[in-house]
Amino acid sequence: MASPEIRVLDKGFVRLIDHMGSDLSVVNAARVSFGKRREAFEEGDAKLIGYLAEHEHTSPFRHTALTLHVKAPIFVFRQWMKHRIGSEFNEISGRYVEFPEDEFFVPAAFRRQAKVNKQGSEGEIDETGRARAMESYLESCRGAVAHYKELLSLGVCREQARCVLPLGLYSEVYWTVSLQAAAHFIRLRADSHAQWEIQQYAAAVRSVVEPIYPVGLKALLTSGKG
Amino acid sequence: MASPEIRVLDKGFVRLIDHMGSDLSVVNAARVSFGKRREAFEEGDAKLIGYLAEHEHTSPFRHTALTLHVKAPIFVFRQWMKHRIGSEFNEISGRYVEFPEDEFFVPAAFRRQAKVNKQGSEGEIDETGRARAMESYLESCRGAVAHYKELLSLGVCREQARCVLPLGLYSEVYWTVSLQAAAHFIRLRADSHAQWEIQQYAAAVRSVVEPIYPVGLKALLTSGKG
Amino acid sequence: MASPEIRVLDKGFVRLIDHMGSDLSVVNAARVSFGKRREAFEEGDAKLIGYLAEHEHTSPFRHTALTLHVKAPIFVFRQWMKHRIGSEFNEISGRYVEFPEDEFFVPAAFRRQAKVNKQGSEGEIDETGRARAMESYLESCRGAVAHYKELLSLGVCREQARCVLPLGLYSEVYWTVSLQAAAHFIRLRADSHAQWEIQQYAAAVRSVVEPIYPVGLKALLTSGKG
Amino acid sequence: MASPEIRVLDKGFVRLIDHMGSDLSVVNAARVSFGKRREAFEEGDAKLIGYLAEHEHTSPFRHTALTLHVKAPIFVFRQWMKHRIGSEFNEISGRYVEFPEDEFFVPAAFRRQAKVNKQGSEGEIDETGRARAMESYLESCRGAVAHYKELLSLGVCREQARCVLPLGLYSEVYWTVSLQAAAHFIRLRADSHAQWEIQQYAAAVRSVVEPIYPVGLKALLTSGKG
Repeated sequence: MASPEIRVLDKGFVRLIDHMGSDLSVVNAARVSFGKRREAFEEGDAKLIGYLAEHEHTSPFRHTALTLHVKAPIFVFRQWMKHRIGSEFNEISGRYVEFPEDEFFVPAAFRRQAKVNKQGSEGEIDETGRARAMESYLESCRGAVAHYKELLSLGVCREQARCVLPLGLYSEVYWTVSLQAAAHFIRLRADSHAQWEIQQYAAAVRSVVEPIYPVGLKALLTSGKG
Repeated sequence: MASPEIRVLDKGFVRLIDHMGSDLSVVNAARVSFGKRREAFEEGDAKLIGYLAEHEHTSPFRHTALTLHVKAPIFVFRQWMKHRIGSEFNEISGRYVEFPEDEFFVPAAFRRQAKVNKQGSEGEIDETGRARAMESYLESCRGAVAHYKELLSLGVCREQARCVLPLGLYSEVYWTVSLQAAAHFIRLRADSHAQWEIQQYAAAVRSVVEPIYPVGLKALLTSGKG
Repeated sequence: MASPEIRVLDKGFVRLIDHMGSDLSVVNAARVSFGKRREAFEEGDAKLIGYLAEHEHTSPFRHTALTLHVKAPIFVFRQWMKHRIGSEFNEISGRYVEFPEDEFFVPAAFRRQAKVNKQGSEGEIDETGRARAMESYLESCRGAVAHYKELLSLGVCREQARCVLPLGLYSEVYWTVSLQAAAHFIRLRADSHAQWEIQQYAAAVRSVVEPIYPVGLKALLTSGKG
Repeated sequence: MASPEIRVLDKGFVRLIDHMGSDLSVVNAARVSFGKRREAFEEGDAKLIGYLAEHEHTSPFRHTALTLHVKAPIFVFRQWMKHRIGSEFNEISGRYVEFPEDEFFVPAAFRRQAKVNKQGSEGEIDETGRARAMESYLESCRGAVAHYKELLSLGVCREQARCVLPLGLYSEVYWTVSLQAAAHFIRLRADSHAQWEIQQYAAAVRSVVEPIYPVGLKALLTSGKG
């Protein structure tokens, strides 16, 4: 039933598990105001949807739902879960599951700390440091995983041993949202001020949501609200 | 696409517009904790769902969604909309739409004010008063509708004219909820302390939700939580 | 402890019951991102708050709370309660309480149905109809209240008798919200497209919120977001 | 203004930043149903509060608010943030802030993986392994911090460098909730099935909340609902 995975970063993915409704659901939820209902999406309906988004009549966009299965690094999920309103998350539990080896994020390139934007990055680090940065990064993550395995072999419970695992570790989540909440996530996280890694997920989520609710998504993104 | 109407009270109904998922969705949202996913509901899954409900692991029950179309008197919707968490409502607007005649709730019987329970009712009123009560009730509602029509004919805007309409007037709503929120509504409003009229809607909602998520609904109702 | 009532419409009011925090709370909730905290609101803080609102970093605005006590007609509360996200309502129950006489809204003027905007109103109705409109309106509401009393006297329970009461009846609510949710309400309901009656409540809410969070409210209203 | 810190684990704390209301707020929010309001908490009010909790009339408990400042390891916050309904979080951002050295959680004892409960722990690991477990744990965390510093010195942006930091790292959060949401957190996380480390935070939160809303908290915890 689930759709194919859209690959994101080096080991992550986004895939659609299920969804409810279409652009027509938005129209019909709005049309209940006038006591009307249609069986097919008609020409004028795109205009109505645009009007709703522009005037912040957002409730019709919430009579929809999507469940996505996402594999992403923990630091990405920590940003993602700030989008809590109208979002449901269920995540792999490090209390139940032993994390596999090498399941951590490895950047394709290391970006420089931005000069002006204190939370941003820009370009790549100097060429002279790149090889050492990658070595250092891998040493750190592999070291952490090795220590994690050692702690488990000494009998330490998973819930404590995981404390040494890195924030770059991949995890998996079921995420259920309305079209409005998905659009809000895409709008804020596809933005150039968001961390580059989560931008890739926002693009992947967009590519899943867009075919299902093309008019509704466009209207919400264009309005810049909601 | 929409299902047949389940008739409620004298002129109301509940019908399913759309839904997402099944009991298997609950299982898979829970199983993501163990990094697992199944394609079919298996025998042990009912036990897992029971465990989740009993231990208030409610988030898996929220990776589901239903949209219902409901016609009910306004005083019923005013109780219904207290269930706001995880619920979306879109309603007919009395600013847009002129209310039709005779679209108000008429009780099949008038109940007596309860002696002990200050917010309750019990039995029927004395037989001597019944005919007059019905006359009085109908006079009031018909009078209000007639005055509403007169105000409109004098040019008064709908948004003001509706002030004279009675709380027993029927309205229509699109209601979108997760299985958990639906179960919570059913549990509290099918209860004998709830007003009799909303109990009828709770029963109708149950008859819509049960075939879709039979195991999940039973688990949530049995646990008495969530 | 509660503040004086701000009178709204003919018999309504808004008054502050309690609140938590100030503009400084917004600043400190935002500054936790940088690991900092201040004891006093400083000059640059208004700029930070403006930046947060403009860039939709809305969560700092939600580390605040206000409780208002509001008396308004039911049709106003029905619009108000559409603002459900981050809002808590507790309302007088018509199951418990017998409604007093003459506690219904009487408009100072009847507006005409708007020609273009199907949900709007404009100007006043023709002078020739005004006296009759008022008579008709009062007859309807007084008639409904009289029938309500009669039903009660016949032994009908309050929960059924109230069905004949008009949507213009006054009710009372405790409303608890964050600054963000209050600003959202004010922004959408002080707008000229909102019904005139609820605009008056939006203005009263603003006059309560503004002295408590002057910088935060201004930033949210100016941004036109959140 | 903020209260003293309650120390939790080796380097964490919970402290009250601000709050709104008292047990009387719960009573008055409930009493608005009867159109009443009191200025002081009276003897019968505890009974009313108990009744509300027992019958899941939870909305009066949400006309309250608390803001806590919490310092806890990231793996604790990841559990904490599952309690999203009615909760607001603002957290230190690893994009803005360079994490200080040695700011990671060090367990006082390592627990054994539980035999039966797949997500639990029990007792301590064998004495023979304890010294090595501590060495391994500290090597891992110190190694990660050293690599983090090296990556920063090579010019790598903070938002990428933090990927190597361990889940045991301390972070800080502002948490704003109603009494109901706080009680729900305490009830589920002070439970013996929760991870021991978060149980310590649940106890600390309880010690902050209890003096402010003693009757309300007790009622919610006793009811085992809400």
